[in-house]
Amino acid sequence: MVFCVSRDKWHPDVGNCTDRASHLAKKTMACQQGALLKVAVRKMSPKITTELLKQLRQVMKNPRYVQEPVQAYIVPSGDAHQSEYIAPCDCRRAFISGFDGSAGTAIVTEQHAAMWTDGRYFLQAAHQMDSNWTLMKMGLKDTPTQEDWLVSVLPEGSKVGVDPFIIPADQWKRMSKVLRSAGHDLVPVKENLIDTIWTDCPQRPCKPLITLDLSYTGVSWRDKIVALRSKMAERKVMWFVVTALDEVAWLFNLRGSDVEYNPVFFAYAVIGMNTIRLFIDGDRMTDPAVREHLQLDSTLEPEFKIQVMPYGSILSELQAVGAGLSPKEKVWLSDKASYALTEAIPKAYRYLTPYTPICIAKAVKNAAETEGMRRAHIKDAVALCELFNWLEKEVPKGTVTEIVAADKAEEFRSQQKDFVELSFATISSTGPNGAIIHYKPVPETNRTLSVNEIYLLDSGAQYKDGTTDVTRTMHFGTPSAYEKECFTYVLKGHIAVSAAIFPNGTKGHLLDSFARSALWDCGLDYLHGTGHGVGSFLNVHEGPCGISYKTFADEPLEAGMIVSDEPGYYEDGSFGIRIENVVLVIPAETKYNFKNRGSLTFEPLTLVPIQTKMIDVNLLTEKECNWVNEYHQKCREVVGAELERQGRHEALRWLLRETEPLARGQ
Amino acid sequence: MVFCVSRDKWHPDVGNCTDRASHLAKKTMACQQGALLKVAVRKMSPKITTELLKQLRQVMKNPRYVQEPVQAYIVPSGDAHQSEYIAPCDCRRAFISGFDGSAGTAIVTEQHAAMWTDGRYFLQAAHQMDSNWTLMKMGLKDTPTQEDWLVSVLPEGSKVGVDPFIIPADQWKRMSKVLRSAGHDLVPVKENLIDTIWTDCPQRPCKPLITLDLSYTGVSWRDKIVALRSKMAERKVMWFVVTALDEVAWLFNLRGSDVEYNPVFFAYAVIGMNTIRLFIDGDRMTDPAVREHLQLDSTLEPEFKIQVMPYGSILSELQAVGAGLSPKEKVWLSDKASYALTEAIPKAYRYLTPYTPICIAKAVKNAAETEGMRRAHIKDAVALCELFNWLEKEVPKGTVTEIVAADKAEEFRSQQKDFVELSFATISSTGPNGAIIHYKPVPETNRTLSVNEIYLLDSGAQYKDGTTDVTRTMHFGTPSAYEKECFTYVLKGHIAVSAAIFPNGTKGHLLDSFARSALWDCGLDYLHGTGHGVGSFLNVHEGPCGISYKTFADEPLEAGMIVSDEPGYYEDGSFGIRIENVVLVIPAETKYNFKNRGSLTFEPLTLVPIQTKMIDVNLLTEKECNWVNEYHQKCREVVGAELERQGRHEALRWLLRETEPLARGQ
Repeated sequence: MVFCVSRDKWHPDVGNCTDRASHLAKKTMACQQGALLKVAVRKMSPKITTELLKQLRQVMKNPRYVQEPVQAYIVPSGDAHQSEYIAPCDCRRAFISGFDGSAGTAIVTEQHAAMWTDGRYFLQAAHQMDSNWTLMKMGLKDTPTQEDWLVSVLPEGSKVGVDPFIIPADQWKRMSKVLRSAGHDLVPVKENLIDTIWTDCPQRPCKPLITLDLSYTGVSWRDKIVALRSKMAERKVMWFVVTALDEVAWLFNLRGSDVEYNPVFFAYAVIGMNTIRLFIDGDRMTDPAVREHLQLDSTLEPEFKIQVMPYGSILSELQAVGAGLSPKEKVWLSDKASYALTEAIPKAYRYLTPYTPICIAKAVKNAAETEGMRRAHIKDAVALCELFNWLEKEVPKGTVTEIVAADKAEEFRSQQKDFVELSFATISSTGPNGAIIHYKPVPETNRTLSVNEIYLLDSGAQYKDGTTDVTRTMHFGTPSAYEKECFTYVLKGHIAVSAAIFPNGTKGHLLDSFARSALWDCGLDYLHGTGHGVGSFLNVHEGPCGISYKTFADEPLEAGMIVSDEPGYYEDGSFGIRIENVVLVIPAETKYNFKNRGSLTFEPLTLVPIQTKMIDVNLLTEKECNWVNEYHQKCREVVGAELERQGRHEALRWLLRETEPLARGQ
Repeated sequence: MVFCVSRDKWHPDVGNCTDRASHLAKKTMACQQGALLKVAVRKMSPKITTELLKQLRQVMKNPRYVQEPVQAYIVPSGDAHQSEYIAPCDCRRAFISGFDGSAGTAIVTEQHAAMWTDGRYFLQAAHQMDSNWTLMKMGLKDTPTQEDWLVSVLPEGSKVGVDPFIIPADQWKRMSKVLRSAGHDLVPVKENLIDTIWTDCPQRPCKPLITLDLSYTGVSWRDKIVALRSKMAERKVMWFVVTALDEVAWLFNLRGSDVEYNPVFFAYAVIGMNTIRLFIDGDRMTDPAVREHLQLDSTLEPEFKIQVMPYGSILSELQAVGAGLSPKEKVWLSDKASYALTEAIPKAYRYLTPYTPICIAKAVKNAAETEGMRRAHIKDAVALCELFNWLEKEVPKGTVTEIVAADKAEEFRSQQKDFVELSFATISSTGPNGAIIHYKPVPETNRTLSVNEIYLLDSGAQYKDGTTDVTRTMHFGTPSAYEKECFTYVLKGHIAVSAAIFPNGTKGHLLDSFARSALWDCGLDYLHGTGHGVGSFLNVHEGPCGISYKTFADEPLEAGMIVSDEPGYYEDGSFGIRIENVVLVIPAETKYNFKNRGSLTFEPLTLVPIQTKMIDVNLLTEKECNWVNEYHQKCREVVGAELERQGRHEALRWLLRETEPLARGQ
């Protein structure tokens, strides 16, 4: 699935509400267009917030919650872990304003309530918010920044409050500086003021954990701790604070289901050179399987003994660590960690990096993880062969809608071994809906698939052995010459990246233009990046690598990393095309081998036929044609064998039909 | 000529001594290798600096020069304008240490003298400096930063001095912060302490100016001022401070020769909404042509009246401007301006940008400049046809050395109309010397050209109508299959960039990988960027655009910009290959035109044959083969006509021979 990144790093502001009510929001995450959303938002009615705002303004002055009254209160999008997807209980900005898009910051003062969001959401925000709110259209020339606006509306010497657990430290720093220079103060308000008025706030999820044994993870959590401590020793740090949810999950070889689509659970960890502290709530640690997995009841060397502590005690424990540091003892944190946790460590003792050693280690998959990802992708391909075979028969009947197709895809996936859940909301889109990059069908927008329109399906699942993410673009009738032409350019770009050979040490962003070259030659382009990192039974979007013209701070690609390759082309109001495989970075063999520097290329893990009907073979070079044929041969062999094994003969026949070799000049 | 850039911006630290004695230094600007320099540095003997250091340590305590004694004094590389090339009088670090490489910072304390430089210069610095100096090898793991080293050696509460005119403001900020947190102080020392002990310091050059009329510049200085003021009004700034030498020269349509190879002159300018102040020394303003050009004696509207002031009065004048500002009156400066000038403006009034509006306007050449560049490149091609024809006859005799060839190239160029000087030191290199990217022949390294080795010539000139920069790689005997193979990959990369089509708004760094793809496929690469901006009868290296994997902060390419396209391949100890054209960004015509966003491509301005003998035609695609043939056809037509006109019949015959069409499958 396409990942929208900001100019120079993984977007810190793509938090996503995952409760049912907010599905509409995700659908509109399209990077480009707004016009098409009109259909979707037509039936929205604004949330009436008069009473809520009144209550919020009261608690902003209530000494029970604030030391001194705050004249403004900031409600950002995120959770305390800077997650991309957030749990319902963290959708505070949506609660107070009604606006539930994935990006936006609300600020409420005594007189005003204002919402900053970007071009993707102008229309939606305008429809979802009542007249108490002013929409601040980010990216437009005359729109003030939040800081400048605050300075312009606040009385002299005001206090601006924010939850220090939600605001990342770097953002605090920037904002605080501007406010201070104008005579105001940014102050941390310990208790979240939204939570004090959100009477029916959903509970923070606290679902059972899944333990992963060595056959899935390849490395025990003990060995991961050893490796982490060796990285810490290299950098001369004594403590490492794990704040990202997928990093905690990866480190302990545990998975959860606290956030939809992301197999993570709410927790922090603090790793010392001789101690391990895991901050986690609920009775999850009473599960015998978990106790056994973490060896909680075993006699262990003290440095591997896990101390389990309440989730909420992270701050006080970290403050105790901070207070007990000797000179030169550093504490390692992500520079995206919350202001609260960052401040717990005195400035002189902080060691901040954009990517943590766990983030980097997690990205390089070991043999067990790679094999798991392979298995997951074969099962996923089986499900999609079944789906496309079914669609081919059903679409002409005019009864298959986008939602029906998405549900059917989920049904086929759920039949596969170790299926856990989807890895993101299925993008099932036909005709003009395909041009909305992050579309997700809802009843208001649901179109019926037909033999006259292109169908784009971007979907994926979480299996216990791996995470998938695949996009195929199909036509169930006869595509036009123009549709085939565009599809073929996208395919050429897909192949250019997939077959690229590049020296060790190359960053993914240097490959982005390869995906565009064929489109550019004809004056076409797409306004999203080409690829993102993919977790191993973890988040479908992960750093620190990717393939995008928008990033520069990505880490170099390494053998074992897994990314998506997903160029596209979108014709507003008519159709969308995207071809996405998940690919594994592998060593390449070259004639001269970069003077032993070594080189890399990609191996597709996704093995789903690319519809040959959509290809204008005459636009392919011989090399590209061979690539398609070899890819399809591999689909036949690998997925064919599994379809056979599962006794799915009709889908197997579909696969064989769809993978007939192309011949140039035909 | 290849331009080494740092990670994310035009390298601030490539100051180059241009006096004769420092030519050796420039030769060694190779980005990669050091081993080959051994030949060059073998005969160097270190400069004895005992007495000089003693004198410097005395003035560091002399109340005549310092308010309080300084315990350390920093001597950076640059001049007060952050120039890439610097004048002899600005080579202070070379004077105090003996080390005259293009990059390096000296720090002298009571007890120590240390020199920080990078891998290109380890060998050279070690040879040129005596035992008073410690070499600090930047990039090695255990080498301390300048700040950390200072903290480790200085007594408590020390003062560290630096010339505030030489140190850029951002560097001051970084260094000052670290020192302050360790209890020391970075202090500006107004009088440069090196100058106080440099008794035979060369005078600051003050050479006559050249005025350029509209036929060269296309826009009068008055209209440039009007355009600048409109940019200032857009950003709501009242003053703009011009600090870069090429920006002053461009703004006033004047040229100088104060710095070798760069037609610039020492000056600053301060542009207000109603005033123009030009800070310049000498009797240059008494030249009637200059007075006429600047309309100094005419009755003008007051806002176009130029006030001429002494070069040295910039600081006090700027301080006066700073003191007289009303609230909201901003002053625009480059963020690379010196600490001294930046500090003259109170912080709240500063408006700093990485690229100034002049830098950006200067990069987009108008019709007159483009036509001038075309003329200059045709003349330059005539000179090179003469040279290569001459080399073809003379090389087999075994009498042509690298220096002879370079001198001959200059001789032929100087015969052309409006020739002013070379645009950089000619890189004339044969065999293994070709693998040293910034090689310049000196007697100690001078090789004789032969029919057995590849010859690489990277050279260019300043003509009154334009600046040239071209690299050709030739073989005067029979190249090996491997040499041809490598040459052909480099050519494929050159063509991939030159023929690339890309949407408006694309930054040059996104094209860099196109130049490498063919090399990468075979496991080869080159460790420099692919292109740099080129001035119009100005500096051969200019911002804000370029084509390099190392930059990210470049400005998008625009029609009218001029850059080089110069991929290469270097085999240490054997040969170097580079193919460089200067190319003009022009609108492209595409089938679908990016939905009216428009698109761009390049047109080669350089029109010098690419040696077909070096091409393995079977490695070219049909499209690439056609590109070469069309390029050579244009060389024939355009340069052929000029050779004919100049009566250079033998060179014309050479041109016709060298531009015979390639046939694939031959």
